[in-house]
Amino acid sequence: MYFSKKDILDMESLSVEEISLILDTADRMKEISQRPVKKVPTLRGQTIVLFFYEPSTRTRTSFDIAAKRLSADSISISASGSSIVKGETLIDTARNLEAMNADIIVMRHSSSGAPHLLAPLVRSSIINAGDGTHAHPSQALLDMMTVREKKGGLKGLRVAIIGDIAHSRVARSNITGFKKMGADIIAAGPPTMMPKGIESLGTEVTHNIDHAVDGADVIMMLRIQKERQKNYTLSTEREYARFYGLNKKRLENAKKDVLIMHPGPINRGIEISHDLADGSHSVILDQVTNGVAVRMALLYLVVGGGKNGDAD
Amino acid sequence: MYFSKKDILDMESLSVEEISLILDTADRMKEISQRPVKKVPTLRGQTIVLFFYEPSTRTRTSFDIAAKRLSADSISISASGSSIVKGETLIDTARNLEAMNADIIVMRHSSSGAPHLLAPLVRSSIINAGDGTHAHPSQALLDMMTVREKKGGLKGLRVAIIGDIAHSRVARSNITGFKKMGADIIAAGPPTMMPKGIESLGTEVTHNIDHAVDGADVIMMLRIQKERQKNYTLSTEREYARFYGLNKKRLENAKKDVLIMHPGPINRGIEISHDLADGSHSVILDQVTNGVAVRMALLYLVVGGGKNGDAD
Amino acid sequence: MYFSKKDILDMESLSVEEISLILDTADRMKEISQRPVKKVPTLRGQTIVLFFYEPSTRTRTSFDIAAKRLSADSISISASGSSIVKGETLIDTARNLEAMNADIIVMRHSSSGAPHLLAPLVRSSIINAGDGTHAHPSQALLDMMTVREKKGGLKGLRVAIIGDIAHSRVARSNITGFKKMGADIIAAGPPTMMPKGIESLGTEVTHNIDHAVDGADVIMMLRIQKERQKNYTLSTEREYARFYGLNKKRLENAKKDVLIMHPGPINRGIEISHDLADGSHSVILDQVTNGVAVRMALLYLVVGGGKNGDAD
Repeated sequence: MYFSKKDILDMESLSVEEISLILDTADRMKEISQRPVKKVPTLRGQTIVLFFYEPSTRTRTSFDIAAKRLSADSISISASGSSIVKGETLIDTARNLEAMNADIIVMRHSSSGAPHLLAPLVRSSIINAGDGTHAHPSQALLDMMTVREKKGGLKGLRVAIIGDIAHSRVARSNITGFKKMGADIIAAGPPTMMPKGIESLGTEVTHNIDHAVDGADVIMMLRIQKERQKNYTLSTEREYARFYGLNKKRLENAKKDVLIMHPGPINRGIEISHDLADGSHSVILDQVTNGVAVRMALLYLVVGGGKNGDAD
Repeated sequence: MYFSKKDILDMESLSVEEISLILDTADRMKEISQRPVKKVPTLRGQTIVLFFYEPSTRTRTSFDIAAKRLSADSISISASGSSIVKGETLIDTARNLEAMNADIIVMRHSSSGAPHLLAPLVRSSIINAGDGTHAHPSQALLDMMTVREKKGGLKGLRVAIIGDIAHSRVARSNITGFKKMGADIIAAGPPTMMPKGIESLGTEVTHNIDHAVDGADVIMMLRIQKERQKNYTLSTEREYARFYGLNKKRLENAKKDVLIMHPGPINRGIEISHDLADGSHSVILDQVTNGVAVRMALLYLVVGGGKNGDAD
Repeated sequence: MYFSKKDILDMESLSVEEISLILDTADRMKEISQRPVKKVPTLRGQTIVLFFYEPSTRTRTSFDIAAKRLSADSISISASGSSIVKGETLIDTARNLEAMNADIIVMRHSSSGAPHLLAPLVRSSIINAGDGTHAHPSQALLDMMTVREKKGGLKGLRVAIIGDIAHSRVARSNITGFKKMGADIIAAGPPTMMPKGIESLGTEVTHNIDHAVDGADVIMMLRIQKERQKNYTLSTEREYARFYGLNKKRLENAKKDVLIMHPGPINRGIEISHDLADGSHSVILDQVTNGVAVRMALLYLVVGGGKNGDAD
């Protein structure tokens, strides 16, 4: 099967076959990062622009490392110190990058839908690295890769996603992706953090974390985005930890081989206790490792890499 | 002919022969950016420092891509987060980069003349990427490349430059460059935006945009630099668009095959209407594409690339 | 001899043999920067993260150039615009970089001891690029390389270190390093700028700069860190220059072949006069050149480069 998508915008637009191809390719890419010489010439002479309108270390660094391990040229642009300050429209900026023969534009933007707006307007491939509260497909794919790696597959697994579902592009992309691959999702969080109509996505919904944890194969904790909360106080924090934080006591009802995941950065002692973050169930650092592999796969596939056989 | 200049400081110091060599080299460089593998080993092992004291996306990215397509190592330094904050003089900073064996320092600076000050003091080649209101030679060269490409030559063309001529290093470098190559320049703009003594450069001057457009082969619109205008209001904006903005109606008096140019970023609806920016006369995105090619040529030529024959 | 240290944290933890190996390797690395093609494939496929929590041009650029001349992939992360803003702990950030298979993390941090905290927790090599007021080993090594190069050795030399010793990680690392290699140190500065118990390091101490200069083979001027001084005024500055600044008159008592050093950036006219900074005794720019060489050596050695024989 050849990968024929130009862009990676969200999980909705990827088929089961495409997701499987991405994950299979990522498995092979992961092996490259474990070699003494972690670099293959696959994308030599390709120009990849990392265009981050919102601050990001983890995702930007992960894409940058992925690009370099494939020998692509990567150029970072941040919103501060850029033409955006001078009032250029997003579309004009993208068309400029296209005119410089950028093969791939990896972009993060605070407005939901920004990458979808650009994708049909430029020849360059657009990879969405997070748009507003909408989608974060490379995060969902690395989460799926991690679970598949540990569990042998995704079908029939019970995946609990816990936290601020309403404002989380990570949650949204994971719900869509995991469901598509046959997993069952239960979403848990305070009523104010649950999006309206979430049931229509086919997920079970609860406000009780213990119910969500009960029988889960995978527990995905979301980050409390302190910087986005109004009236955030220390007592809010303590209260959140008490009602929605994951800790050892709560974990007792989960399956014995449950996986604990977190997209990072972690607020230790708030949404997850110290011991669990570093404990034997945690696959949080596997997620980070797989993030580089998934992004290598995406960069490789969108420029037609799959057409010529092996990635290496 | 060999290119013997160490530095690219302004258009005044380039001869007709040197300009022609740069444009010829850029034509060949452009072809590299259209290959599936957009990279040649020409500048492998050369150290290029991109030293931008003023924010810039377009120019910095263009030079960065140019350096990478030639396999040079490029290092970006911005004024914030640098030793400049600690009070180091510009000359000491440049001497430090020279001591690190930087082959080329591409610099943008808010003070007119800053690159001219440094050039004789360091062995590294200095390429001026914009100094104050003085010069922006790589922009003028990419503009000349674009016109030459579309019109087959520059001699005898009527080039209208419209806008804030007084504060525009783009205008200044283009006037000098195009005149040197035998084009006729007519400069148009509000009286407050025309530099004193501009007639001495041998350009026709008018405050009437319709007169400038009349019979023009090339119309170069300048950017209204909102961020530099005091008392800038929306009514200023509307008024500017009315008296000095380019629109369909105004274009009727230009030649049928007139080229519309803009150095970007565009203020749509102010100095240029939406339809013209994206219309068939516009070569604005060609300028961006040619920018990479011209910068590849400059990087190549200043380190003596022309001596060894072909660029590739 | 093979270099077996995973990390470079401070001068205390390096043996005489290890320091000699680093300086010998740096001598060979320096030659690479003088070639027409300044690049060897030695660290191809190695991932080097430059993680600077404090602003830095000189040191970050030097490490970046060093990494690129060895063909490593280098990724820069600064504290602003990174997950640190989102409240991630330093240890979690480092573990994330490790999970992305970073081979080396070069870090600068405002807290003394930060790199020592991380080193035992991650497989990645940690190179301290300056931690608080504690250590700056690559600076001390480049200073030692420079003196060794000019004087043929370090043993028995009289090295005067002058300025704000108390707040200088450069001074601390140099005192330890030079003493280890058999040089004699005399530290001079205002009483408020001398750390308590400095005599215990085995250095002579004086508040009289003329006494320090008398008979010195090497004079190392420290930078007045204006940005760290409270109540810093121009009169403070003039007074400092008068009592502790190095100038031609003061130099008369030094040896005829004395070396003048400064870690940069220089405050001309304060700690050092213009003519001396640029004079025949000054090796300030040699220090910068050797900085790249020493950093190439460190990057090479910490990943086990010494095991396979030649660096090239």
